[in-house]
Parts: sequence; structure tokens; C-alpha cells
Amino acid sequence: MLERKFAAILGIYGKPSDRFMSGGYKSDAPNVFTRIEMASKHGLVRGVELIQGEDADIHPGNKNAVRAALADHGLEVCAINPNLWGEPRWFKGTLGSTDPKIFRQAIDSIKLSIDLAAELHCEYVGLWPGQDGYDYLFEVDYLRLYDQWVQGMQELADYNPAIKLGLEYKPYEPRTHSVISTAPKTLLMLHDIDRPNVGLTLDVGHALYARENLGETVALSQRQSKLFHLHLNDNFADWDWDLNFGVVHLFDFIEMIYWLKRTGYSGWYSIDIFAYRMDAADAIDESLSWLKSMLEFVEDAGTEQFDQFLVSGDPLLVSEFFRKHLFPLRR
Amino acid sequence: MLERKFAAILGIYGKPSDRFMSGGYKSDAPNVFTRIEMASKHGLVRGVELIQGEDADIHPGNKNAVRAALADHGLEVCAINPNLWGEPRWFKGTLGSTDPKIFRQAIDSIKLSIDLAAELHCEYVGLWPGQDGYDYLFEVDYLRLYDQWVQGMQELADYNPAIKLGLEYKPYEPRTHSVISTAPKTLLMLHDIDRPNVGLTLDVGHALYARENLGETVALSQRQSKLFHLHLNDNFADWDWDLNFGVVHLFDFIEMIYWLKRTGYSGWYSIDIFAYRMDAADAIDESLSWLKSMLEFVEDAGTEQFDQFLVSGDPLLVSEFFRKHLFPLRR
Amino acid sequence: MLERKFAAILGIYGKPSDRFMSGGYKSDAPNVFTRIEMASKHGLVRGVELIQGEDADIHPGNKNAVRAALADHGLEVCAINPNLWGEPRWFKGTLGSTDPKIFRQAIDSIKLSIDLAAELHCEYVGLWPGQDGYDYLFEVDYLRLYDQWVQGMQELADYNPAIKLGLEYKPYEPRTHSVISTAPKTLLMLHDIDRPNVGLTLDVGHALYARENLGETVALSQRQSKLFHLHLNDNFADWDWDLNFGVVHLFDFIEMIYWLKRTGYSGWYSIDIFAYRMDAADAIDESLSWLKSMLEFVEDAGTEQFDQFLVSGDPLLVSEFFRKHLFPLRR
Amino acid sequence: MLERKFAAILGIYGKPSDRFMSGGYKSDAPNVFTRIEMASKHGLVRGVELIQGEDADIHPGNKNAVRAALADHGLEVCAINPNLWGEPRWFKGTLGSTDPKIFRQAIDSIKLSIDLAAELHCEYVGLWPGQDGYDYLFEVDYLRLYDQWVQGMQELADYNPAIKLGLEYKPYEPRTHSVISTAPKTLLMLHDIDRPNVGLTLDVGHALYARENLGETVALSQRQSKLFHLHLNDNFADWDWDLNFGVVHLFDFIEMIYWLKRTGYSGWYSIDIFAYRMDAADAIDESLSWLKSMLEFVEDAGTEQFDQFLVSGDPLLVSEFFRKHLFPLRR
Repeated sequence: MLERKFAAILGIYGKPSDRFMSGGYKSDAPNVFTRIEMASKHGLVRGVELIQGEDADIHPGNKNAVRAALADHGLEVCAINPNLWGEPRWFKGTLGSTDPKIFRQAIDSIKLSIDLAAELHCEYVGLWPGQDGYDYLFEVDYLRLYDQWVQGMQELADYNPAIKLGLEYKPYEPRTHSVISTAPKTLLMLHDIDRPNVGLTLDVGHALYARENLGETVALSQRQSKLFHLHLNDNFADWDWDLNFGVVHLFDFIEMIYWLKRTGYSGWYSIDIFAYRMDAADAIDESLSWLKSMLEFVEDAGTEQFDQFLVSGDPLLVSEFFRKHLFPLRR
Repeated sequence: MLERKFAAILGIYGKPSDRFMSGGYKSDAPNVFTRIEMASKHGLVRGVELIQGEDADIHPGNKNAVRAALADHGLEVCAINPNLWGEPRWFKGTLGSTDPKIFRQAIDSIKLSIDLAAELHCEYVGLWPGQDGYDYLFEVDYLRLYDQWVQGMQELADYNPAIKLGLEYKPYEPRTHSVISTAPKTLLMLHDIDRPNVGLTLDVGHALYARENLGETVALSQRQSKLFHLHLNDNFADWDWDLNFGVVHLFDFIEMIYWLKRTGYSGWYSIDIFAYRMDAADAIDESLSWLKSMLEFVEDAGTEQFDQFLVSGDPLLVSEFFRKHLFPLRR
Repeated sequence: MLERKFAAILGIYGKPSDRFMSGGYKSDAPNVFTRIEMASKHGLVRGVELIQGEDADIHPGNKNAVRAALADHGLEVCAINPNLWGEPRWFKGTLGSTDPKIFRQAIDSIKLSIDLAAELHCEYVGLWPGQDGYDYLFEVDYLRLYDQWVQGMQELADYNPAIKLGLEYKPYEPRTHSVISTAPKTLLMLHDIDRPNVGLTLDVGHALYARENLGETVALSQRQSKLFHLHLNDNFADWDWDLNFGVVHLFDFIEMIYWLKRTGYSGWYSIDIFAYRMDAADAIDESLSWLKSMLEFVEDAGTEQFDQFLVSGDPLLVSEFFRKHLFPLRR
Repeated sequence: MLERKFAAILGIYGKPSDRFMSGGYKSDAPNVFTRIEMASKHGLVRGVELIQGEDADIHPGNKNAVRAALADHGLEVCAINPNLWGEPRWFKGTLGSTDPKIFRQAIDSIKLSIDLAAELHCEYVGLWPGQDGYDYLFEVDYLRLYDQWVQGMQELADYNPAIKLGLEYKPYEPRTHSVISTAPKTLLMLHDIDRPNVGLTLDVGHALYARENLGETVALSQRQSKLFHLHLNDNFADWDWDLNFGVVHLFDFIEMIYWLKRTGYSGWYSIDIFAYRMDAADAIDESLSWLKSMLEFVEDAGTEQFDQFLVSGDPLLVSEFFRKHLFPLRR
């Protein structure tokens, strides 16, 4: 039952836009209930991530209706994520803002997500602070910014220690430099935050274009038992394209799965793509099918097989192994 | 009078959005007439680029009013650019579309820009086909795509040979791969298009993150007398951030200006930035002030000075020259 | 008999060094005859590339002995390449040198390669001018450099029209900027050189870290019938690592093979790797085995299958196809 | 007396080679005593870094002669660095080797550097483990590699707590992935090493092509009082070109100097370049002259000026400041 923890971000089923096609790439913008129905139609999706915000998936005003709809459609909630990127008040940051009022509003918004998570029996709140960082040199005081994040996260962690908080790092976009930018920087900050319920969320696309090795990132994060959540997509290692999972990288993902298995990762595998020019539900399903195939491949091969590669240190053995499994002898 | 050809894209004064802040980073979205007024208030802006489209700056329905407003405010039109990126019908390309109806609509839209340019005494139409390209491998037939662009441009060039058409290349975004992606690829295509009134538009930010040397790009383009237009902004060579001109690169821009001067570039210098988190008019003015300083610097030094560097081939002479001019000896 | 055109650069069997391990990564530096014997022991290698130079594989003083050794071991010569990178006199370039004596010496050295090629019944001479370019801004006159290359190549092409000359582009290294840097720039220069026996050599690693799409590069080159030769290796798209072929990219290589087949490429497939920390012969054999598997895969699928993907423009069909072929259903 | 801590790596005065010009770019390879003499001739160099190794600058057999030569020429030793990259035994790593004998030899070699540093009254030993990392996926066990480095460094730190050990991180080269790759990863490892005399060495070129912001790197390192040493050079943010300091970046370096000053950095400023195609002594002198100019610029402006920029968070103020200082009004 490898797929019991397969999920998708509910917003993927919506109407994506970008800075050039500001009106959106699709004609319809299905509401949250339609999107829940869409998610339930593909058997591989078992859980969904909800964005919390007034104009987003969930808020106090619709929480009961959303909960009911999810139950009706047999979907779990695997994450409640406050919208820390798309509200105009956050345009220069949230916990990193130089304005104490904005800092406090951000704290409050995240606490609301924590409360909603507790109510919906979801143990995880994901934080992606896209607007926290800087665009220009000499724009921010790096130490102030870092310290505000440490202190803010401590307050949030202590607010409800039963809820896990995951920091989703990303090197850049929308800011030219994010404050929480790479896995090692996040792990360093986690040392300073020093709370058991604060960890790291790995978006594989973010890691790939930060030129991280996914397997090593999992290994380092799990060395501190800090890998809380996983976002899956793909790109050409030059930008956060949020392409379908599996269309570019292959060996990197398999190595990552080996490390997930070896370090006992038990969280969700959640698809995080932008289906600008195709059917979103089909794209999610195809992405999860790739994931399933890769998980099965590692399962079938056995982790001992990969352990042996690491002991041998011989890249030719690895190359031969993949070649013979992916391209069995002709005739 | 170095600044007599200073311009800005009129849309910069508007309300920018991106895929995360889809509602836009500013509260107001000033209309075209307000933006013309804004542009006229800063003395450095002498010309503006207008986007042509139903919901854009200019279209047959408002052309007379726009022309009058520009005259009232003493602004020239330096470019009319059809909106080839932000209308939903173009979501998979324009001249590169596999749908013949879309190809024809794109031809018609560009011809409309050509007509408007002729009416407004503007000699240049800029084409940035952002949606033409592909996101995934095996998504398009590269030869069909290339050939459609060649044929389409020939038809457009012949439609009104008095109007110059500039192809603005960009490596990627919004597609993961643009069809018109780099300066050499554009110049190669210009060979195949083979029309005197089709040329290249250099957006310095696009060139920088395509890892081109700006001076060399100007030299190669002008070797074929094909540099038709210039878009100015800056970035960290990793993405099209459209930052204010001059905030990151310095020596690259000065070298470019030397080559512009040496090859007799006589076109416009047009600011193309996204002022997400600051006042747009101030950002344009600051950008043009940098441009003015750099132009003066090259003017004062004299091209002979730089010619000599190229003859000597000695990087230490160049380094010393810049050091002593930028940081005159302390007391 | 897909493998009848499989080759390797003979120097791979030697002793590689780099700027930090200047004494070399291996204890032995086998001479050319030993390396010929090594190449012959692996059945997949049918041809070899020879470097021409006084201290290299072949020169007038040993040509008969080398020819005899190749014949004894049943190996063809698929390329004679003048050493344009490793002789101290070339430290600031060859055909691009500002010193007319160096320019002439480079012409003479390349003509010697052409003569040797003719004598050894090899129809191809490969030119990789690693030292031609620049390191610093304002170091060279881009137009002079470009024009010298055009004129030099014309003289060389006319010297013996029966021998094909291939320009191997590379974005950078050892210079921070190469003069012949990308496929489009090379194709542009080929327009100016304007000789049928001058073409382009595609080193897939160079293209990958220039962020080119391999399939598109083949398509564009073959549109002008200019793809003369192929060098195979792999890297992480950030540098010319010269890793074993097939260890990182997969779909890119398959798409490239489709385009090679569709455009009728009939040249050699030559391995060009640096086996710093492993057995060179094994690394070449493993690389050629990957190549063979991929060629068979495209052969089995049939080009019509891929043609249909391009007509459909549907990335989900492509994704499903690869998934089901690489990971057949379990049990 | 800003220049009292100006230094250079002594090897720069030698004969550089690379993987293509394996015999070296210069005709002479001056020995250590000649190089000491060369370093002393340029007034700006006050200290030198020595490589320790049998065929390197210093070893037990020549230590007294080297010490005498340095004294004669009035040069201080600011670093003793064991050669952890250029001896064949290290070809797959040092403290990260899977071979316990190699691990022990590496420990011994570093201890020898520590002893020599103590004898020569140098308080710092720099470690750049270029061969520690991996080239291929599935080649190493990331946790074993990391843990061996932690344990090895603890043993070394305890060997002589009076000597500071600096880990010089670098994203890649010669391995495709270094074990100690970025500033945050190094700082994370320093948490685990947990010794006051182990810190970080910042090579600005390594940081730039790891896409780090230099100012932020200094800030984060000094937040833990861990910036031990500084290597200066420049590049185009795409590779470790080791160009002369100041030829590409300007604002980044000035921001870095602000942060060095603000956080009280009191170590050396050591030039680390490869002068492949120019006179090494001149290149070092020009690099130090740029450094001096930038230090003076920050000194003259005053840190309060820059503090205010960070409080304002207004990039336009910063842009205007630099513009007006670098390009004072004409006439």
C-alpha cells in the first residue's frame, strides 16, 4: 500500500496565472468544493493540502462545510498552509517584516492555521514564506531578518506543540533571495529555533534548482529527524517550473526514495505542480503514477542493493544496474 | 543630448502581479491616460512603448485619444508592441501555434500593430512571443515551429516594409524553453527570414541570464546591422528579475555602451522593469539616471581609450582604468 | 548493427590531470600503442579519434606505425584532431590570436591534420579551439576575433574540400568565454564561412551545460545539413564534467536520438569522457552500452511513435509512454 | 593602515596548469624561495599562505630555510594549509575516505600543518578538502561521509586548541559535489563539530558561484563568531574562475566589506587567484589595490550610512548613493 500517503495541493485544480497571463490560463476557476470533488475522482489521491486564507480554500467561515465535503469524498487533510504569499499586506514579508504590526498579523494567521489543523485532525501546518527575503543588495539587515524568524517560530511552536510546523525552503521567487533558501540554511535555523515540532519541508523542485542532491538533503534532514513533509514536481534545475513529477529527473528521484526508505520517512508524498496548459487532474494522476512506479522499483530492488553500491563506491556498478533494469536485453 | 532617446514601457506604471500575488502588488491600476501623465512628469522619459490589445494601452477604439494625450504631454511613441503573451488564446503560442486559426489571428494582430505604428509615426513594432516555445520534451516539432516563425515573419515584413519589426529573444519564461531564445539563434533566424526590416531587440536582462556577454551580443548583431531596439533592466544573471537598471552589473553595461557607440546604434534606450515593491516612476527615473551616467562616462573616456584596451589585450590595464576612475585617490 | 559507428577518443585511456592534481590521477600513462591495444579489447569500440601533435597520438614521425597498429587491431580512424588547446604557444588562442605568426602556425597545424586524415582515409578533422575566447571584459575585439575565425576556416576548407572540418562549440573552459560557444552561434558562423565541408560537432555535454535542448540542436544543425560529428558524455548541466554517458540525462538523450534518426545522421558516435577515478576502458564500454540500449529503444518504438507525440503536443502521452516502457507493470 | 592584513597564497606566483594545458601555462616554475622574493617586492603583500606537503611550499625538511627567507623579506605567515587535493593518495578523499588508512594519513598530514603553524607563530591552518565528495549518484553514503568529517575535525581541534582550523567550503570541483559545499552546510557541520577553534573560511569566488550573497554569508558566519579567514578573487558566478579581485562584482564586495566591518572581522584578506595568462605579481597587486579602494570607500562613507539603508529598506536610496559616488556630476 505504497500509495496510502499520496496527496495533492488542492489549489492545483484551480486557475493558474503568472505575471504575463495575469487573467489566468484557464477559463474556469472551480471553487473549493468542486476542487474537492475533482481530487476525489482519481483513486491515487488520498489526502489534500488546504490553503488557509479569506479568499483561499479554508477559513473559519467555511471550515465545517469543507470538512464535511472532504469526509463525503473520502479525502484526508494532510496539511493546512496559511497563505503567506498572496495577500497584499505580505508584499515585503511576514515574520520577517520590519513592521511589527505585520509580524503580529502573520503570527496570528499562522496560529489560525494551527487551530484549524487541530480541529480537522491534521497534524501538520506548512509554511512557505515566499515574500520573506529581499530583491536588492543593502535592502535588509540579514541578522534582524534571521532572528525575527527564529523568534517567531519559537512562539508558534510553543502555541501548540502537538502540531508540526514545516518550513518549506526555496532559493528564490518571488523575491530574488529568500530568507529560508536551502536545506542546510533551514537546518541551521532549526538548530536556533530548537523546538521538536518545527522541521523542514522538502519541495524537490526547490532543491533541484538550488542544485542540491535530493538524497543528500533527505539524509542530512533525517540525521536530525527533521524531514516533516514532501512536495513533488520536476524542473530543468534552473527554475521552479513545477512540471509534472518524473518528466526530467529519474535517478535523482530514485536515490531520494532510497534515502526516504532508509531513514524511515513516514510522511505524505504531496504533488505540487502548476498545470498551466493541461488538465490538472490528469497531470496529478500521471505524477502519482510515476511516484508509484519509482517506489515499487526501490521496493523490488531492495535497499540492500543500494546499500551495497554505497559500500562499493563504484559508479560503474550503479550505471550497469540501472541500464539493465530499465532496458532489459532485447530479444 | 544623450538622453534624447530615453524611453520607458508604459505598462511599468501599472499594477504588476505574479503567479503568487495574482491580485497584484499595488492597490491602484492606473489607466493608460494616467500612466501617460505619470511618464511625462519625469523629465528623463522622452518616449514610451505602447502595448497593443483590447485590454492593453492602445487599440483602434482609443487610438486617437491616446495620440492626443501623448502629444499633450510631449511624449513620442518609440514602439507599438502587440500583446502576444497575455491573451488566453495565445496560451500555446502565436506564429508557432499548431492551430492555423491561431497563426492567422497572430498575423492579424501584428498587422494591426504595424498599422497603428504607421499612423502614429512610430517606425518600430516589437515582438516578444512569450508563449511560443515548449515546456516538456517531445512537446513540439522544432523544425515546424522554426519554419512557421520564418514564414510568418516574411509575410509580416512584406506587409509594410517601412516599419521595422524587432524580435525580442528570451531564453525562457513563461515557457521553459522559448523558440526565440538567444541572440545567435535570433540572428540565425534573421538569415532565414531574409528581410531588411526584420531585426533583433536586445533586452539586456534576457541576455544576461542567457549568459551572453552584452558587448559581444551588440557586436554580432550590428555586424549584420540588425540591432533595432534596446530594453534596459538588470538581474543576478539567474532569471529575468527586471530589476532597476544598474543595480547589479556595471562593467558589462559600460562595455555594451562602448559597442553601441562603436557600431553606431541610433535607436532608443527603453526601460523595461517590474517595480513590484516600489514607486514605478522613481524606479524608471533612477534607472535612466544610471544610464545617463554610464553614457557620459564612455563619452568622457572616449572610444579610443577602449579601443586601445582591445588592442593591448591586457586585463590589468582595464582593471586599473576602472579602479582609478571609480575610486579616485583618497586625499 | 547499430554499433558499427561506435568510437572513443583514444586519449581517454591515458592519464588525466586537472589544475589541482597536476601530476595526474593515475600512476600509468600508457603510450599510443598501448592505448590502441586497450581500445581494441572492448568489442563495442570500432573507431578512434586521434589527437595530432608532437606529444600527442599522431604526428608525421609515427604515422605509419600508428596506422599499422590500428590495422592490426581492427580499428578505424574516425577523426584526426589537431591539439589546439594543450601547446603553450596557443595560450591566448589559435586562429583567433592577435599574433599573425600564431595564426599562421595554427593554420599549418590544422592543415597537417587534414593531410594526415587524407592519408589515413579518415574523412573528418575535428577542431576544438579551447583557448580561443577571452577571460575578462574588454580583453578582445569580438568582431576581429569572429572575422579571423571565418577567414581562417575558409582557407582551411579550401585546402582540401574532400575533408570535412567540424567546429566543436563549448560555452566556456578553459577560457571564461569561448569564441565558438553555442550551436546557434556556430551555425551563424557557418553561414559566414559558407563552405560545404565545414560543419558543426556536437559534444552533448557542452550543449547540456549551455542549456541547449539536444533534440532541438540536432534539428537546427541538420536543417542546414551541418551535423558532422557527435561526442558523448554526461554532466549535471552545470559544467563539462565529462561523466559517463547516460548517468544523469535520459529523456534528453532519447529525444536526441529520435532527431538523429529522423534527420538521417550517418556519422560516428564517439565517447568523450574523463575517467579520473575509474578504469577508462570499463567506463567507455559502459557508456557505449547505454548508447546501444537507447538506440535500440528508439528503434523498437519506431520514429512514428515519437512523430505522433509531436503532432499531439500532449506531454501526458509522452510521460505515460516512458513510464510504461521503463517500469512495466509489477507482477 | 587598512592594508596591514593583506596577503596572498604563495603558490599564485608559480606555474598554473589545467586539464587541457597539463604542462602549464608558463615557462618557469619558480621555487618557494624565489616566490617569497617575488611576494616581498610588492608593498601591498604583508602575509603569505603556505601549502604544506612534500612537493609543496613547506615541509619538515625545509621549514627553517623557509622561515628564514620569510623573515629576511619581512613577510608574515598567515596560514599553513596541508595539500589535501594534489597528492594521488587523496584521489577519492581525505577525512571522508572509505579507507581507514587514508583517513589516518589525512589526520597526520593536518596535524603536521598544525605543528608547523605553531612553530612558525601562525595561528591558522586552512583546510580545503577538494577531493572529498562524489561525482556520481549512489557513489557515497552521505551520512558516513558527513560523520567522518565531524569526528575527524573534533580530533584535530583537540590536538592543539591554540590553532584555529578553517573549513573552506566550495560547491564543486574537482568533484561534481563537494562534501563541504556551502556556508550554511559548513555552519551546520560546525554545530556538530562543536569546537571553538574550528571555523569557516570564506572564499568569495566559491560563495559567488554557489549563488550566495556575500554580505549575508559574513553575517550568518559571524552570528556564530565563525568567520576565520577570507580568500579573495572574482568570477562570473558560474564557476571558480579565480579571476582578479574586483573585475566583475562591485556592489556585492562593498556590501561584504560593510558586514565584515560591522561584525568586527579581524582576520586576513588573502588573494587566491589563478593568473594563467598574465604576470602573477601584477595581478595580485591590482587585486589588492581594488580591495584597498573598496575598504577606503566603506571607511569614508561610514557604516552608519549603510545601517540607514537597511533601516529604510529602500533600494532607490542605495542606487542613488552608489551612482552619485561612483559617477560624480559631470562638469
